[in-house]
Amino acid sequence: MQFQLVRKDKGTGARAAILKTDHGEIRTPVFMPVGTQAAVKALSPQDLSEIRAQIMLSNTYHLYLRPGSDVVRRAGGVQRFNGWHKPILTDSGGFQIFSLNDLNKVTPDGLQFRSHLDGSQHFFSPQKVVQIQRDLGSDIMMVLDECVPFPAEFSYVRKSIRRTAAWARTSMTEFQQAPPLHGHSQALFAIVQGGVYPDLRRECTAQLVDMDFPGYAIGGLSVGEPKEAMYEMTGIVTERLPEQKPRYLMGVGKPDDLLNAIERGIDMFDCIIPTRNGRNGQAFTAAGPLNIKNVAHKDSAEPLDSECDCYTCTHFTRSYLRHLYVAKELLILKLLSFHNLYFYMSLMERARKAILHNRFAEFKKQFLSRYHNDQP
Amino acid sequence: MQFQLVRKDKGTGARAAILKTDHGEIRTPVFMPVGTQAAVKALSPQDLSEIRAQIMLSNTYHLYLRPGSDVVRRAGGVQRFNGWHKPILTDSGGFQIFSLNDLNKVTPDGLQFRSHLDGSQHFFSPQKVVQIQRDLGSDIMMVLDECVPFPAEFSYVRKSIRRTAAWARTSMTEFQQAPPLHGHSQALFAIVQGGVYPDLRRECTAQLVDMDFPGYAIGGLSVGEPKEAMYEMTGIVTERLPEQKPRYLMGVGKPDDLLNAIERGIDMFDCIIPTRNGRNGQAFTAAGPLNIKNVAHKDSAEPLDSECDCYTCTHFTRSYLRHLYVAKELLILKLLSFHNLYFYMSLMERARKAILHNRFAEFKKQFLSRYHNDQP
Repeated sequence: MQFQLVRKDKGTGARAAILKTDHGEIRTPVFMPVGTQAAVKALSPQDLSEIRAQIMLSNTYHLYLRPGSDVVRRAGGVQRFNGWHKPILTDSGGFQIFSLNDLNKVTPDGLQFRSHLDGSQHFFSPQKVVQIQRDLGSDIMMVLDECVPFPAEFSYVRKSIRRTAAWARTSMTEFQQAPPLHGHSQALFAIVQGGVYPDLRRECTAQLVDMDFPGYAIGGLSVGEPKEAMYEMTGIVTERLPEQKPRYLMGVGKPDDLLNAIERGIDMFDCIIPTRNGRNGQAFTAAGPLNIKNVAHKDSAEPLDSECDCYTCTHFTRSYLRHLYVAKELLILKLLSFHNLYFYMSLMERARKAILHNRFAEFKKQFLSRYHNDQP
Repeated sequence: MQFQLVRKDKGTGARAAILKTDHGEIRTPVFMPVGTQAAVKALSPQDLSEIRAQIMLSNTYHLYLRPGSDVVRRAGGVQRFNGWHKPILTDSGGFQIFSLNDLNKVTPDGLQFRSHLDGSQHFFSPQKVVQIQRDLGSDIMMVLDECVPFPAEFSYVRKSIRRTAAWARTSMTEFQQAPPLHGHSQALFAIVQGGVYPDLRRECTAQLVDMDFPGYAIGGLSVGEPKEAMYEMTGIVTERLPEQKPRYLMGVGKPDDLLNAIERGIDMFDCIIPTRNGRNGQAFTAAGPLNIKNVAHKDSAEPLDSECDCYTCTHFTRSYLRHLYVAKELLILKLLSFHNLYFYMSLMERARKAILHNRFAEFKKQFLSRYHNDQP
């Protein structure tokens, strides 16, 4: 994997870069649609190509449990399995084990957990998580981390980040010993934890930077902490990360979160919001979020977003989309997910263009002013 | 609407024809995907075009209740409402009132029923059903009929077909008085009822043929009667229908039903089987139906149907499709519905080609032999 910094915005920390993988190039800032179980909900690989998605996220925890990483390995890796032939990043499962399971135990060697599917007992060590991702063949693999909840005691988080750093080192060793299985190279990213404690974020960053990973993620944010804390932690970490490596803010977020994080030097994002909110009837538009259930749309011949040129906005009225939602027609799940992801892709493309022209701050201001004030 | 008979198969009653509407031509035999609520479940108009669908079926009863035929009228008719710009046929609602409602009353003037959505009381007269379909602007409208259950007493069915015939006459009068609203012409088809009683089918056919409708449907079949009775009734009716008018067998069916009915001179079909069975994990293939849940497919790198060139079969393995089904991923609903409808469209195209070459009987025999014996 190669990372080429193309431009740094003059007025902010925003960056435009190109990330090269064996499955193709990724222009950043980039938003990665979430395909937890090797499929983005309600969308096909063809849809994702039409949306101009560059990379899909999938999940180690979920694929390990179902269909089983052995099935994906025998298929020739996740791209051959799911028909998405562009880059794939797999999250390590640390976050899912904490968010989906009541019963779990953190030991110095890894995470003990119960399957959310059948209650069966499993153990993820840092080594095992690397091995599973070798089976999966994702272009970007993530190390096992401990994702601490918010709020959490300083003393617990301090202990936890030292464990997370030790696991990162173990993961790197395993990564160097276990070669890729599917004929293409894979990169391993570390994950900076530290809750909302600046000192711990600094300490964790320093330790992981010493290990010289090819990329760094920021984890454990967007878990209930105030937005200001999220932005502050993001800034503290990105200031300390090496400039020539990609930075990924995990699980974030809404359009304003993305712009605020890009401003602080983040290159990569993933989040379920555009697809999940779409399935719940919320559409993102240039004039702010819109709820398609609203009776105001009953006879509206307007598109969802008159500034959008996606399939949904160029073919269907709000009246029809509202009918589909109210009538619980499956098609609405696709049409709103498609539009929302298209909106996110377009936002990233516009942010990149603004950075290339040294006017990111102005772009952000204009976008947010229209997004927050001029409600449709 | 024009109907042009292109070829009659020499060995059977099968016909190839062209049905011309203001929204385009339809080559028959034709299968109409069912978009009950103005959307085919899990598929977009773009998907339907890729499948080579020529005409969509929608439903008067459902659209009247939700979103309301007034909403569709204000949108400019169902095509402008749902973005499917090819022909649309709307069923009258007679079947739905009988199949969805416990509480209903048949009077000489029409059908009293309760909404399956909120229990509210409604009344459909033959005139009202024509008026609603004027609002909807479907290319082909259906008269209100009484769909009798199976089994039903001879005396009841005899009384019922006389009512159905009287309603057809009333519908025709209303149709001639109420002009179309959306700038394109609409045709009104009658529906032959008569249960499984040959004499009543003959009587109903004769009465409706006298009224000179531009097309005729056969209703009240595929409601639980033996297959032989369905085929026998179909043959009795088609023998008595005018050759120069289209014939539509409502709510049928499985691949062998379609071929058996084409052999007896049917031109048009609709059925929920390809989409509903698809949503339940059943795929139609040249080698017979296949259940994607089956553990035999766990590691299969084969496509659903190696003879099919649809998007699903050219992009995904059985292993991945099984995973999507087992993991309850929404994408499977689209992929199996798409494949099954594509299979049906392809079956109709092959049947038409066989008719054009006077070898329908041979085609049917070959298709069914492979379909029933060579299970995958």
